[in-house]
Amino acid sequence: MNKKKIINDPVYGFISIPSAMVFDLIAHPYFQRLRYIKQLGMTHLVYPGALHTRFHHALGAMHLMGLAIEVLRGKGHVVTPGEEEAATIAILLHDIGHGPFSHALEHSLVKGIRHEDISMFVMERLNEEFGGRLEAAIAIFRGRYPKKFLTQLICSQMDLDRMDYLNRDSFFTGVSEGVISFDRIIKMFNVLDDELVVEEKGIYSVEKFLIARRLMYWQVYLHKTVVAGEMVLVKILKRAKSLAAAGESLFASPALAHFLKQEVSEAEFFSGNFHLREFMKLDDQDIFTSVKVWCDHPDRILSRLCHMLTDRNLYKVEIGSVVPNPERVAMLRENAMRLFRLSAEEAGYFVFTDVIMNRAYNAGMGNINILLKNSSIIDIAKASDLSNLESLDRTVEKYILCYPRLI
Amino acid sequence: MNKKKIINDPVYGFISIPSAMVFDLIAHPYFQRLRYIKQLGMTHLVYPGALHTRFHHALGAMHLMGLAIEVLRGKGHVVTPGEEEAATIAILLHDIGHGPFSHALEHSLVKGIRHEDISMFVMERLNEEFGGRLEAAIAIFRGRYPKKFLTQLICSQMDLDRMDYLNRDSFFTGVSEGVISFDRIIKMFNVLDDELVVEEKGIYSVEKFLIARRLMYWQVYLHKTVVAGEMVLVKILKRAKSLAAAGESLFASPALAHFLKQEVSEAEFFSGNFHLREFMKLDDQDIFTSVKVWCDHPDRILSRLCHMLTDRNLYKVEIGSVVPNPERVAMLRENAMRLFRLSAEEAGYFVFTDVIMNRAYNAGMGNINILLKNSSIIDIAKASDLSNLESLDRTVEKYILCYPRLI
Amino acid sequence: MNKKKIINDPVYGFISIPSAMVFDLIAHPYFQRLRYIKQLGMTHLVYPGALHTRFHHALGAMHLMGLAIEVLRGKGHVVTPGEEEAATIAILLHDIGHGPFSHALEHSLVKGIRHEDISMFVMERLNEEFGGRLEAAIAIFRGRYPKKFLTQLICSQMDLDRMDYLNRDSFFTGVSEGVISFDRIIKMFNVLDDELVVEEKGIYSVEKFLIARRLMYWQVYLHKTVVAGEMVLVKILKRAKSLAAAGESLFASPALAHFLKQEVSEAEFFSGNFHLREFMKLDDQDIFTSVKVWCDHPDRILSRLCHMLTDRNLYKVEIGSVVPNPERVAMLRENAMRLFRLSAEEAGYFVFTDVIMNRAYNAGMGNINILLKNSSIIDIAKASDLSNLESLDRTVEKYILCYPRLI
Amino acid sequence: MNKKKIINDPVYGFISIPSAMVFDLIAHPYFQRLRYIKQLGMTHLVYPGALHTRFHHALGAMHLMGLAIEVLRGKGHVVTPGEEEAATIAILLHDIGHGPFSHALEHSLVKGIRHEDISMFVMERLNEEFGGRLEAAIAIFRGRYPKKFLTQLICSQMDLDRMDYLNRDSFFTGVSEGVISFDRIIKMFNVLDDELVVEEKGIYSVEKFLIARRLMYWQVYLHKTVVAGEMVLVKILKRAKSLAAAGESLFASPALAHFLKQEVSEAEFFSGNFHLREFMKLDDQDIFTSVKVWCDHPDRILSRLCHMLTDRNLYKVEIGSVVPNPERVAMLRENAMRLFRLSAEEAGYFVFTDVIMNRAYNAGMGNINILLKNSSIIDIAKASDLSNLESLDRTVEKYILCYPRLI
Repeated sequence: MNKKKIINDPVYGFISIPSAMVFDLIAHPYFQRLRYIKQLGMTHLVYPGALHTRFHHALGAMHLMGLAIEVLRGKGHVVTPGEEEAATIAILLHDIGHGPFSHALEHSLVKGIRHEDISMFVMERLNEEFGGRLEAAIAIFRGRYPKKFLTQLICSQMDLDRMDYLNRDSFFTGVSEGVISFDRIIKMFNVLDDELVVEEKGIYSVEKFLIARRLMYWQVYLHKTVVAGEMVLVKILKRAKSLAAAGESLFASPALAHFLKQEVSEAEFFSGNFHLREFMKLDDQDIFTSVKVWCDHPDRILSRLCHMLTDRNLYKVEIGSVVPNPERVAMLRENAMRLFRLSAEEAGYFVFTDVIMNRAYNAGMGNINILLKNSSIIDIAKASDLSNLESLDRTVEKYILCYPRLI
Repeated sequence: MNKKKIINDPVYGFISIPSAMVFDLIAHPYFQRLRYIKQLGMTHLVYPGALHTRFHHALGAMHLMGLAIEVLRGKGHVVTPGEEEAATIAILLHDIGHGPFSHALEHSLVKGIRHEDISMFVMERLNEEFGGRLEAAIAIFRGRYPKKFLTQLICSQMDLDRMDYLNRDSFFTGVSEGVISFDRIIKMFNVLDDELVVEEKGIYSVEKFLIARRLMYWQVYLHKTVVAGEMVLVKILKRAKSLAAAGESLFASPALAHFLKQEVSEAEFFSGNFHLREFMKLDDQDIFTSVKVWCDHPDRILSRLCHMLTDRNLYKVEIGSVVPNPERVAMLRENAMRLFRLSAEEAGYFVFTDVIMNRAYNAGMGNINILLKNSSIIDIAKASDLSNLESLDRTVEKYILCYPRLI
Repeated sequence: MNKKKIINDPVYGFISIPSAMVFDLIAHPYFQRLRYIKQLGMTHLVYPGALHTRFHHALGAMHLMGLAIEVLRGKGHVVTPGEEEAATIAILLHDIGHGPFSHALEHSLVKGIRHEDISMFVMERLNEEFGGRLEAAIAIFRGRYPKKFLTQLICSQMDLDRMDYLNRDSFFTGVSEGVISFDRIIKMFNVLDDELVVEEKGIYSVEKFLIARRLMYWQVYLHKTVVAGEMVLVKILKRAKSLAAAGESLFASPALAHFLKQEVSEAEFFSGNFHLREFMKLDDQDIFTSVKVWCDHPDRILSRLCHMLTDRNLYKVEIGSVVPNPERVAMLRENAMRLFRLSAEEAGYFVFTDVIMNRAYNAGMGNINILLKNSSIIDIAKASDLSNLESLDRTVEKYILCYPRLI
Repeated sequence: MNKKKIINDPVYGFISIPSAMVFDLIAHPYFQRLRYIKQLGMTHLVYPGALHTRFHHALGAMHLMGLAIEVLRGKGHVVTPGEEEAATIAILLHDIGHGPFSHALEHSLVKGIRHEDISMFVMERLNEEFGGRLEAAIAIFRGRYPKKFLTQLICSQMDLDRMDYLNRDSFFTGVSEGVISFDRIIKMFNVLDDELVVEEKGIYSVEKFLIARRLMYWQVYLHKTVVAGEMVLVKILKRAKSLAAAGESLFASPALAHFLKQEVSEAEFFSGNFHLREFMKLDDQDIFTSVKVWCDHPDRILSRLCHMLTDRNLYKVEIGSVVPNPERVAMLRENAMRLFRLSAEEAGYFVFTDVIMNRAYNAGMGNINILLKNSSIIDIAKASDLSNLESLDRTVEKYILCYPRLI
């Protein structure tokens, strides 16, 4: 069987599967599962094209890895075929641990279990299954491989993961603000002392990349309606879990039921295959199919929340720079109590506050280094004659207040 | 509440919702449901970007309607605001009756019930709900409105439905063969004696449109792997239904269970809201969530078929111009019987033949009329100096043979 | 004759000519002349696709005017058909006074005569020719029309001129950094107290627009090789003019000869049609055809400079934040004197310094006003939570040093 | 000096210059000259974006050569680095012999001298200049190299030349009908017995390519206004040449004057560098600058024809399938004689007939061979189930009749 396939990708034209080993990983049910996990969760409620999946993103990031290694080799840096395959596998699997609607789930169903740790855990399982052939990929993923730039291509301020998701999210949402010149940036990649650097000529493309990321945050990732959709889902799962804990019967696929009926601690999750096996059966469809069925559940709170999602009648979300006025929150909550006949505790499902944040460029963690023509290295925030990059290096925290539209 | 929204669409840039009435129809749960029904069913198994939905397609077709009416008015043809809204609603709802994976479903779950008839049925229900405000839309949809060109914009050889789906399917699959010059064709629209015509200058764009449709058929819609995916689903649902008939318990959402457990005839379906209400709860997610759970079902045939789909280990499909050799089919079936320990009847789930067809341009049904500069009308197949268009007016039937890869 | 034409434009798809009057202006030889004046002068020496003309840009800006007026009308602001035509004409003709390689010419051939003044002058001539039908267009262009927003659409920090040139220059150079969401910005246009404002939801698109402009400056408009090309042309024309003044014979079209042989003062230029008539015959081709012929001119300096341009063997340009070291400049000049056997004065053609600048957003002149949801107005630099916009409001001056590559 | 440059190309993103030798050829004045020769001559009179040059096209075709060789190597076919450079040079220089407005010129200024022969002649001159380093490139260009597929990549029914020009012409005109899936076709390239073949899976892309070519012919290359523009130029040059022969003085650059004042036979042209040196100084600008000046020439016929071009007041062109009615032609000519006070012979400049043709796919010359899965070879016209490809294999001849708009 010929495993050197090419795959049509509207973003890059074609993506080639570079080797039989990579083909086999893509064919693995754990990876095929990513076909059913949307990259942007609820974002399609605002941008109806944003249905692209983590499967597609992982392939895209893999494609960029091929381009980047070709550029680096062209500049005389040695990347052996084995290292190429390892880096390819590492980026292909970097998101393998994502569950459905990760942001919502990590606050509800699998509380406190980070998807990065699950990715690592899955890579180790696959390494066993493939007879140790993922050793180098794991070393790169963990940052334990001598050629640090291979790790930086996968995880740094300017990694190929971000480059693909900005490209892909812009493309499928239709928000041209996120368009970046990924091909120019990659062509400007270089390596100095085993570290990834960007040549001086690429400085404007890097600036643009940082700005694009910032704009995508506010225009897409933290769009009010997207936040509203995620918040509804968090509350639905919280309610369902508390009903399940109380012994209520709830329609759910076996995998979803597994996590509804019990609280799995981090330690338990990573203690064997028991929980992982169920987790790897979960995708967006389990969640949403249950939400649809729960619309008819006798619990008034659960059914109301579920209807909010299926009928796209979401929370109204206010985003501001200061803590919402507690009196206003109290008043809204009272309205909800009266209108929907709820207890104070129950009203917390409908009226609540939270904090969201956006840190576009974090100077401390894995800087973007610019290689000047005189061969010295300088941080992008210093290389630019624009003060904006310093301001990007600031966490912007915003406060949100959510409540039903009709109160 | 401001209902004049604009929606980002990567295909056309922005789509405007033209009126409050249209907004309310889009907000209706029956329409929101289309968010979860993919336009191209299983096609994403080959083209991973092809996840766009009937929701998005309906909005896109509505957008084109706005462009077309603007062009026709600019040429002096009267389209009243009421007619504009009616035509807009008619095209918006033209696919409202689609269920999940329509092609597969119409051969299994709701046998013999055509989605066009369901669309009509739903429009009538909505007309009741909206106090008769869909009367004109229904008249246009049924072809009973005097200005025939309004119906032709929705349903003819060169309707806006086809134009949007070719654009959209090309865009999301990344198959540039399907790119059409929709804006040029629409700018060449005109009306003569209440019939839609295309001005002579648009002839090459029409040719291109017909060719693009043909190529999309073979490259996308009837791609071997797409056919294989649909065929697996047909067989899964057939098996599930026969198990359900035999009293076997099967995990399913209530809506799916409704159609698994009973055979609903066309007459029954359209006799009231009973079946429709359940049908309108079904989407792709009900089907696929069950398929995932059925992977662990004790019935060996069902679980094997379901694994074929979730693991993307589909039938091998051979497409040819002649009936597959019966001896070869018999031999393959025997292999399957022996290998999987099946009865002859059971082997029919794994080895079988069928027929697929592609008729790109059907001269009999709603011709594409070209308006010559001398104001006479001529069919496109005659207007072109190319014989290819005549050949497009031929049903190409192909025979398929499906069997598991490993036999 | 049907004057309602549509024109293919790869940037926007199609551009419609809205009226017979506009058609006649486009057909006028003064406007047709713009077909032969490149928008970006020498930029094609770096970006070979950047051959688009002022003709194409003017049509594009006109197209955006149509979109903007449609949006404003949709929001209830009155723009009469007469005002629409006037605004359309004003933007169509806003660059009619450009000569070939304007930046270079204004420093050499027609010293001190600003293209904006020529545009105004030409509009007045056309107004006479068209029997006073350009009165309102001229009032808008001059900023003397009561509805100030019409002028602001043509000339302000966020006018349609800039929007089209960013779109178009990005498209034809292939520099995706300049891509802006013009359609979103235009959809966010509104009018308050006769002033153009942008609604709050458009704030990120405006930020992006400002950043895109800044990046295009450094990556395209002030690219070293582009600057080098323009500088060579400035020096060529200066030399040719001084030779002509000394009575030397020089191949030139009559129109070019007209300006080579005499110094035309601003007062003389605008005193009648005498000079204008010749100026309106000049385009890029007159200049470059002479440059090619002058390669064989006996004057060593002229011929060397011309060869630098035709053979694309341009100055080396250094760009920096401080005044170039005078000793270094002197040394380079001495090298040039020795190597090419030149006098000190002659060496000034080959080794020299100059200043270039980039002011992306000038808060003083025609601010970009953001319309908040509470109906108050705020400047974009204050509306953004990002300090970068303040830094954009700073003229960045850079010093350049030019010298031949081989010294 | 680093000669490994990358060039921004809006069509492909980036084009890399693969070697110092190729860099030096691009830097050669003969090649730089192509910057000033538009690929599509007068087409910009209809499609204002169509200003792209033979320089840009040659770089684009070179880029595709790199992709094609990478694909063929990936399938196990040996292409040595020397062969790669030779093929790259051959395609880079395949159009080096084009003069300005080739179609017009070959019917007027340099009658009967084919640009292909000039390309060959220039390659030989460059071979001398570069010390014999173009030998292999010349052998490939001439079809004398053993690996025939290298020649076929440059010149065959499906060569990279055509692929680039369809891509590029579509892009810059904005005519999406010409969009082809060049990357898919190239990925389907293979070699059998030293011949270039396309794998079966690429068959629909090849069909699409052939149809796109046909449509581009009628919509762009043979558009009435384009034909009208070229015809005016042919007549202008014919008139100018006859005036020059009669001793009239005509403004012209020395290079243009060289060819105006004498008839150069094919034998003379190729007998040394004398004529070539002048020819290589000619570009679009020489021609058009003279046309502008000749608008004021005392010869009424010349000046009228030149005004037709500069004012874009071109011939009316009728295209038909039969020879224009001779009586109608005679009548139109008489009108022209009377109206413009012309002799019968002079009227032939304004009213005349001619023949144009379009042969999309010529089965005889360098067939497109499809490689079936069973490893046999079949011509595309037979491989397709569509009769249209046979009809493409037919020269479509059309008759044109040209006359001034006002008679």
